Amino acid sequence: MKKLLLLSLIALPALAISPVEVSRGARDYRIKHEREIVAELMDLLAIPNLASDSTNIEKNANALVTMLTRRGADAKLLRVEGAPPVVYATIPARGAKTTIAFYAHYDGQPVDPKQWTTPPWQPVLRAPNGNAVELSKLIDPETRIYARSASDDKAPIIAMLAALDALKSVKAVPSVNLKFAFEGEEEAGSPHLAAYFEKYPAEMTADAWMLCDGPVHQSRHMQLYFGARGVTDLEITAYGPLRPLHSGHYGNWAPNPIVTLTHLIDSMRDTNGKILIDGYYDDVTPLTGAERDALAAIPNIDDDLKRELALGRVEGEGKALNELILLPALNLRGFLGGHVEEQASNTISTEAKASIDFRLVPAETPEKIRERVERHITAQNFFIVRETPDAATRIAHPNVVKLVWGPGYPAARTAMDLPVSRRVANVITAAQGVPPYLLPSLGGSVPMYLFQRGNTPVVGLPIVNHDNNQHAANENLRIQNLWDGVEIFAALFTNLR
Amino acid sequence: MKKLLLLSLIALPALAISPVEVSRGARDYRIKHEREIVAELMDLLAIPNLASDSTNIEKNANALVTMLTRRGADAKLLRVEGAPPVVYATIPARGAKTTIAFYAHYDGQPVDPKQWTTPPWQPVLRAPNGNAVELSKLIDPETRIYARSASDDKAPIIAMLAALDALKSVKAVPSVNLKFAFEGEEEAGSPHLAAYFEKYPAEMTADAWMLCDGPVHQSRHMQLYFGARGVTDLEITAYGPLRPLHSGHYGNWAPNPIVTLTHLIDSMRDTNGKILIDGYYDDVTPLTGAERDALAAIPNIDDDLKRELALGRVEGEGKALNELILLPALNLRGFLGGHVEEQASNTISTEAKASIDFRLVPAETPEKIRERVERHITAQNFFIVRETPDAATRIAHPNVVKLVWGPGYPAARTAMDLPVSRRVANVITAAQGVPPYLLPSLGGSVPMYLFQRGNTPVVGLPIVNHDNNQHAANENLRIQNLWDGVEIFAALFTNLR
Repeated sequence: MKKLLLLSLIALPALAISPVEVSRGARDYRIKHEREIVAELMDLLAIPNLASDSTNIEKNANALVTMLTRRGADAKLLRVEGAPPVVYATIPARGAKTTIAFYAHYDGQPVDPKQWTTPPWQPVLRAPNGNAVELSKLIDPETRIYARSASDDKAPIIAMLAALDALKSVKAVPSVNLKFAFEGEEEAGSPHLAAYFEKYPAEMTADAWMLCDGPVHQSRHMQLYFGARGVTDLEITAYGPLRPLHSGHYGNWAPNPIVTLTHLIDSMRDTNGKILIDGYYDDVTPLTGAERDALAAIPNIDDDLKRELALGRVEGEGKALNELILLPALNLRGFLGGHVEEQASNTISTEAKASIDFRLVPAETPEKIRERVERHITAQNFFIVRETPDAATRIAHPNVVKLVWGPGYPAARTAMDLPVSRRVANVITAAQGVPPYLLPSLGGSVPMYLFQRGNTPVVGLPIVNHDNNQHAANENLRIQNLWDGVEIFAALFTNLR
Repeated sequence: MKKLLLLSLIALPALAISPVEVSRGARDYRIKHEREIVAELMDLLAIPNLASDSTNIEKNANALVTMLTRRGADAKLLRVEGAPPVVYATIPARGAKTTIAFYAHYDGQPVDPKQWTTPPWQPVLRAPNGNAVELSKLIDPETRIYARSASDDKAPIIAMLAALDALKSVKAVPSVNLKFAFEGEEEAGSPHLAAYFEKYPAEMTADAWMLCDGPVHQSRHMQLYFGARGVTDLEITAYGPLRPLHSGHYGNWAPNPIVTLTHLIDSMRDTNGKILIDGYYDDVTPLTGAERDALAAIPNIDDDLKRELALGRVEGEGKALNELILLPALNLRGFLGGHVEEQASNTISTEAKASIDFRLVPAETPEKIRERVERHITAQNFFIVRETPDAATRIAHPNVVKLVWGPGYPAARTAMDLPVSRRVANVITAAQGVPPYLLPSLGGSVPMYLFQRGNTPVVGLPIVNHDNNQHAANENLRIQNLWDGVEIFAALFTNLR
């Protein structure tokens, strides 16, 4: 055994393959296997992946176990009752004392298929001009794959798997013990992730976590993030008459629930993004000097973005996007009452609904947000209920609203100057030839706070394009971002310490 | 010929059959033929009747011609290009110098089948407890027929036809020349009704019009209306980013079109029904003494209605419903942006839509309303377009809204003290034993102004129940209202002068 071990050690290439060498090797490998890599991603994207669709979620999880096992990883499913499984895998590095865990998620946001050009789970390749591209043809790196989760968040998974293949092709091995944990309900708010950390402390522990989620900078430049905003969401229903009423016979008298709700919404937020709820900004801490410096190093692309998005104005009273996404936010996800256009009728509806997501900064918690929001709504003369109110309840109060809060979680931050934080940035700098931008926090939310338990460093490592229609219809991945991801993961797997 | 004419005159019953006699006779007839009458209504309701659905609209029109012809009427279709036909019929009264025309409409409001307990064009009978009732069973008069247009506005048509049958059974004949004109696009705003009046001046002329549309009083008491509010509608689209954006990465910066639109809506109307648009009430004339007296004679049932509708508050700052529906009104028919509940995602949408109906009082015109509303919207810093704006237009203006106005028409009033106005009220008083309530104007809109050409008196004569879910899901007709209608029409056909 001892002899065999020695022999196999001797048979290994030198551990110290530089980021440049390994990323070049990964590029050579990728160029030879482009179509295989894209085909593997498309196969994975063809499996529907709503967290609530347990049959298909299991199919995704099983496919990932097979894909990881094929790369020599020791893969299995972790299970918490009532939750999609976590796909877990390890690849030990001989002699390594450090374990780095890579997180991604395989579930996707809900879809409205009517809004998609092609069905969300029938992945297609389209050229920048919109024409369909056959996989059998050579792939222009500006080609995009259109499918739910093409970017968010199945692309990083495929990039990691391809990077493992690439390491083999250049006979390189990981420099640290690798762990992979792929969640199946991130887009549903990760309601069981805490339970996974509780139930599987050995598996869900590492010296540092890399969160492979979110997009690169809008300039297409690589960026790392060291924090994420928290999130919570709220469904509001306002009530009108018990049955729909003819607007001619009852308008001006029977309250219209749409109008009730527009006024409630407007009491909470202005058209500049400012939240008007009392005490809402009390927990906001100003940016530190280091954070301001990091932000200052990132080019301001707001004007380009305005043009790209055809915006005639922006919110935030002159502050830059990078700064605004470090503040609390109240976003209207949806508003639905009555009908519009061809479906409109001259009716006063029985109810109107709004859906809100709140983004939280450090020191805010979902509980504090709920308390402040509900205090505000009560102060607007609303009676709050949790279930659909009966007629007696509706008669008893001038305004009744049903509030249903979704699962939420707080924000998190990792110090930018920890050794592992610096190492990740340095490896990427060496592999790509330019330093990544460093963001104190992502504007979006990932449940980073869970990974931070016991003060574990957590670094966010996004690879996908910013203009990916993430969370919306026609989500897509620009192929070049997948290729960049393969090189970056190959460099990190072999050069982290 | 002369002898034959004399003979047939002699064979006729006395012309002067009193309202009480004829309505009793109609009741006897109805009791014997209840199921036939309901079956005929249900057959008519089974034909889908959206004004835009020309195939089915033709089926409705042809069925009505057949039904009228069967009663001995001279029936035909009037046609204006691109419009549903007007079903027109005459029944002359020998020796009569007066012609009274009865208007109804056979088209219905749009439907959202998902909201209906049973499909809108599969009429069913249900008992007050909700249980389905077989037509073969004896019909409890509290039974309701559920279907689109069960009340609005096919029930009056069937009541008139059954009244004609009832006249034959008691050997009574009309005392005036009867005309019938049934429109096929009233719920689409009657865009071609003016053209019908232009093209068919001989047919569309009468000494007075009876508009058989709208509901009876909420107390189930008969009412007549001598005016109607005008109406116009507006579809508003507000724009956000050119593509949907992740709310975490772009929230607080990219304007949310839902928020843009809630603020615009709130700038136009408060939660008390008050319209905040500059000059909006300039054309409102105060109620006359006669109108106030007529209103005062109607019992105030607002508290009962509040209970029935489970309203914890009403709009209008203490004014009664009857008075409020004589004022201008701005009603939100719908609001749609993004998604709510299970469909919600953390997204900033590309657009949000609202649909508004405006109710107009005399002296207001759709043109004046449009001008005032657009002046207001412009003053809120919006750039108005008529077609979906391109990216260049969206970049060029802080806020762009698309406004699409529907067809509209003005309000109208007939004097309550004209001979024909009094006669209608007196016949109904005699037939029912109690005087009907007299409304200066209906809150709802019917294109009365067209019928008023040349100062023709127009009286609104509603027979259907007020709680009929008119314009909404689960529209229904209470059977007793159909029975009352048969008696009232029988009395009017034989006792108008």
